[in-house]
Amino acid sequence: VSGEFRRIAIVGRGLIGRSIELALAARGSAAAVVALDRADDLAGVRGADLIVLSAPVTENLRLLEAIRGFLLPSTLVTDTGSTKAAMAAAAAGVRFVGGHPIAGSSQGGAAAARPDLFVGRDWIVTPTASTPADDVARVSAFAATLGARVLPLDPAEHDRIFALVSHLPQIVVSALMHVVGRDAGAAGLALAGPGLRDSTRLAASPPGIWRDVLATNHAAIAPAIDRLIAELERLRDDVDGEALTRIFDSAAAWKRTLDERPL
Amino acid sequence: VSGEFRRIAIVGRGLIGRSIELALAARGSAAAVVALDRADDLAGVRGADLIVLSAPVTENLRLLEAIRGFLLPSTLVTDTGSTKAAMAAAAAGVRFVGGHPIAGSSQGGAAAARPDLFVGRDWIVTPTASTPADDVARVSAFAATLGARVLPLDPAEHDRIFALVSHLPQIVVSALMHVVGRDAGAAGLALAGPGLRDSTRLAASPPGIWRDVLATNHAAIAPAIDRLIAELERLRDDVDGEALTRIFDSAAAWKRTLDERPL
Repeated sequence: VSGEFRRIAIVGRGLIGRSIELALAARGSAAAVVALDRADDLAGVRGADLIVLSAPVTENLRLLEAIRGFLLPSTLVTDTGSTKAAMAAAAAGVRFVGGHPIAGSSQGGAAAARPDLFVGRDWIVTPTASTPADDVARVSAFAATLGARVLPLDPAEHDRIFALVSHLPQIVVSALMHVVGRDAGAAGLALAGPGLRDSTRLAASPPGIWRDVLATNHAAIAPAIDRLIAELERLRDDVDGEALTRIFDSAAAWKRTLDERPL
Repeated sequence: VSGEFRRIAIVGRGLIGRSIELALAARGSAAAVVALDRADDLAGVRGADLIVLSAPVTENLRLLEAIRGFLLPSTLVTDTGSTKAAMAAAAAGVRFVGGHPIAGSSQGGAAAARPDLFVGRDWIVTPTASTPADDVARVSAFAATLGARVLPLDPAEHDRIFALVSHLPQIVVSALMHVVGRDAGAAGLALAGPGLRDSTRLAASPPGIWRDVLATNHAAIAPAIDRLIAELERLRDDVDGEALTRIFDSAAAWKRTLDERPL
């Protein structure tokens, strides 16, 4: 189906951008593929009928402005960033359908790129109410060609859900590791059991992409942080164990729901 | 060295109490061992020269009062609970040295008991400034006989460190899973990547033992929660990514320190 696109330009050559290149090549796509580093001359996107912006979100926002002069009315633009509402708003006047492949980690980098990175993984496409159905279908078909399972979601709903299942956990784990390390020190950490180690795997994440995520999804992340703080205050002020029992029972039930789904 | 004790009474037959029984038997201890359920007639501790209280902390506090009438001046009492200051305070007038074996999980239960549960694991002993050195040595030798590595720590310092490396992570992970599940629902959880699953392993913990921990270590846990909340508020209010960069860099560095230690 990606054969529908005659010329595809990919801007950004990290894990996602490079894996798209490799996947197109491995699947014998007939499309001509132009892969640009975000620092390259963006005139290279001229003539593409699909442009994929695969840099971090704030960089994609800049790239979108930089390529406007090269777009034809028929040129379709998509992106692969971690937050969707800011990009959708910035794309006014552009033929645009956002996307978010749930694949790999922010730490992978181009060296971890693989042609099968998207196989069997979710790829969320985020049309707005005014996106033409045909454009949604074409971007969805492109993602499906790479092996992904395509799920449509409103950009704001995407950002609300990912604020909860991805952004909040990352922020909380980094804040936890920072406080525990700072206040317990290396001697205290030496007494930790495996629970702390398991809980803090995400604390190894570098700040780069998460600065982007917080900057472009603050509207959903800030209230999620506030709702977590409210529960932490309930636990802090719990005098009879009532709040703790309720919150722990709820957590254990949701944990079962989370783990029931095969990864 | 445990041969020094002629008669050992263990009260509480969960994972820790049962594993102590099994370890004593496996190591050919010459001591007579009396193992009591916490619901049994506590007169069974009469004549023991070491009594090990191996129930949850609030239950140990109750047991300590219940056995006072059976203690001789020579009877040494220890415990294996997760918090140490409350027990140390309650033990005034008793010949007591607290202990905390860092082994197994609160979910293990008696069925998971093993004679080698303590081998190579830390067993913290928590004398106060007024504990006779000989009593500390005897309880330490008992733990070492079971295969553990013995570490002395002041009860308040124990509770401060474990509030950070154990209690705070448990509370935060349960609160996180509760909020994420409640607000994202099963459909939202279905979009989560492996990061959320890894981060929330502790969310399966049942509330029982943690009610005890919060009730008996509130003085250390409440300010630790407050310091975490302060960092979460900094991240929530971060406008330029400065706080996020600082906290994430600190977290990644402490995560490396944590992971450097072999488990």
